[in-house]
Amino acid sequence: MSSKARIGLLGPFPMNGGDGTHSYAKNSTLQRKSADAVRGKIGEAIAEKLDMETLCSGGKSFHIADFGCSTGPNTFIAIQNILESVERKFKTQCPTSQTPEFQAFFNDQASNDFNSLFTTLPLDRQYFAAGVPGSFHGRLFPDSSLHFAYSSTALHWLSKVPEELLDKNSPSFNKGRIYYTNTLDKVVDAYSSQFAKDMEIFLDARAKEVVAGGMLVMTMPGQPNGIPHCQTGLGMSIDYLESCFLDMVNEGIISEAKVDSFNLPMYSATLEEMKELIQRNGSFNVEKTELTMANGELQLQSYSSYTGRILQMHLRAGMEEMISKHFGTEIIDDLFDRYAMKVEYFFHRLQSSERKGALLFVVLKRK
Amino acid sequence: MSSKARIGLLGPFPMNGGDGTHSYAKNSTLQRKSADAVRGKIGEAIAEKLDMETLCSGGKSFHIADFGCSTGPNTFIAIQNILESVERKFKTQCPTSQTPEFQAFFNDQASNDFNSLFTTLPLDRQYFAAGVPGSFHGRLFPDSSLHFAYSSTALHWLSKVPEELLDKNSPSFNKGRIYYTNTLDKVVDAYSSQFAKDMEIFLDARAKEVVAGGMLVMTMPGQPNGIPHCQTGLGMSIDYLESCFLDMVNEGIISEAKVDSFNLPMYSATLEEMKELIQRNGSFNVEKTELTMANGELQLQSYSSYTGRILQMHLRAGMEEMISKHFGTEIIDDLFDRYAMKVEYFFHRLQSSERKGALLFVVLKRK
Repeated sequence: MSSKARIGLLGPFPMNGGDGTHSYAKNSTLQRKSADAVRGKIGEAIAEKLDMETLCSGGKSFHIADFGCSTGPNTFIAIQNILESVERKFKTQCPTSQTPEFQAFFNDQASNDFNSLFTTLPLDRQYFAAGVPGSFHGRLFPDSSLHFAYSSTALHWLSKVPEELLDKNSPSFNKGRIYYTNTLDKVVDAYSSQFAKDMEIFLDARAKEVVAGGMLVMTMPGQPNGIPHCQTGLGMSIDYLESCFLDMVNEGIISEAKVDSFNLPMYSATLEEMKELIQRNGSFNVEKTELTMANGELQLQSYSSYTGRILQMHLRAGMEEMISKHFGTEIIDDLFDRYAMKVEYFFHRLQSSERKGALLFVVLKRK
Repeated sequence: MSSKARIGLLGPFPMNGGDGTHSYAKNSTLQRKSADAVRGKIGEAIAEKLDMETLCSGGKSFHIADFGCSTGPNTFIAIQNILESVERKFKTQCPTSQTPEFQAFFNDQASNDFNSLFTTLPLDRQYFAAGVPGSFHGRLFPDSSLHFAYSSTALHWLSKVPEELLDKNSPSFNKGRIYYTNTLDKVVDAYSSQFAKDMEIFLDARAKEVVAGGMLVMTMPGQPNGIPHCQTGLGMSIDYLESCFLDMVNEGIISEAKVDSFNLPMYSATLEEMKELIQRNGSFNVEKTELTMANGELQLQSYSSYTGRILQMHLRAGMEEMISKHFGTEIIDDLFDRYAMKVEYFFHRLQSSERKGALLFVVLKRK
């Protein structure tokens, strides 16, 4: 699984804001690696599938939205790439018309650090920028007002923890675990069913907002068929985090009940699951779906300098707020120090799991 | 001059953010008083002049923007008022059509506290919300993408201090003063000419962004004809602030040079000046222009409980950042304590000046 997938950082709790040591802005280079990998594919999809003549006839402006943008710089790079690809396609298709104006909407939850996002917007941007606060599990834009919707490393975050995981009397009670690796099938089902509900709401909302012929591109951690969750990079990473929590229970630093009632609201779908959800929604034509296997060898070489400490910095930028809210801020430094040590110690296992990781890449077009 | 005008709070420096003691959110009730006064007038203008059939044919959504919104709650109240008036007009004019969806754009400079704005958005709002960071002295939206542009107590702030005021060798050098009351005509001219340049840029940008038939409503402090600047509430208030600075120079707390190089970038235009600028721009039909005289008696009664301390809290919410940047944060408490005492002492003079204050109210329609 790609490093981006393993430490996907967007969710119901915002990334760490600002530009300090633990900020997302300073700890999102791994996400960029994955974004780089799909950049070319997005350009291809735009070149091959987007009909600019229909979308921008009569001098209409072109509206792009990034759902789950967090703070910069990754979202700025993504928007710039989309803009340039669209512009290129327009010039090929409508060589005598004037290039459309672009408006870019940066969406994330209202608690996201929009102040940082806004003050770091590229000064030489070729688009009008707007921030849109609110959950993408719901409507955010007027009918047919977007031409290109994009979401990167965000949709694997669930809108909430499935309730049955917290119910002591439920067969899905997730005792002593914080995720769905190495646990009951019922727990996996609860996660999978929450993901299906969330995607249904997301696709319904975007179907209303994206104009006919407009594009929806999604990338997120994916689950390869036939590989147990616990053997993926993401599963393994979370297992280490879980074992840090359990160590802290054993040392009396946190209570068992606290761990029992904490579950990470993220899920990696298989390509088949995703295809089925898109088909069930019915509003989009599937232009491309792909489970990109991370290139393990390449990752090993290029990430050889990443120590456990750097990986924990990335995880911390994405999860600190969520964990603090449940366990209190006082355990944070201790927890992530333990995590860094554990990851460093077991780094060779994580490295081999890289080969079993994957990124879902989906290109849809609004019917 | 209305209290709102006297302590107009938007400018090149943002209002104090957050919701603390000195925040704009907690210190903008006086601005709301003035907004209340024009609310009915805006409703009337929409009812009489806005052609909803043209603007929202074919189920198009209706886009409203507030230029210089600061943080809540005043901007939310204004947007809600506009939305309800537009909806009422639509139902009258197109009783069988479905009410349009609304998108509201909240604009202020990138350094505005959008995080506070976004987390205090009304939960029961009937519009899709977006924040637009950047100076309204320039383009912020695509061509013809707005149906209703609004700006309240913001346009009297200049984009910058006229440069000649700072030049020791210029006849407009504004020695020992921080504003244009009781000073050289050349200084007044420099202020007035900067205001003209700024309004030209503002009107040019909005002319491109507002659709044909769309509306632009502006309210800001105005200057009644025949009344010296120094006798208006705003002029008098700033004179007190200036004299606090000069007291601090005399006591050796700040240097004379610091005061010489500080000028408040605000200007109150007369109705005639404003009309001329609109005509020179040429893109809008004038539907209504009005210099509303503040009702002194009413203000005296309703504001009798406002002490100098409360007035200084309002002034501080709007000017603290600007003053801190020039003089340093260490003088702020001292300065505003002095100001509060001075205002309290001379409150009767401020009260009588209320009668000489005015609010410019302008309704334009894009040709």
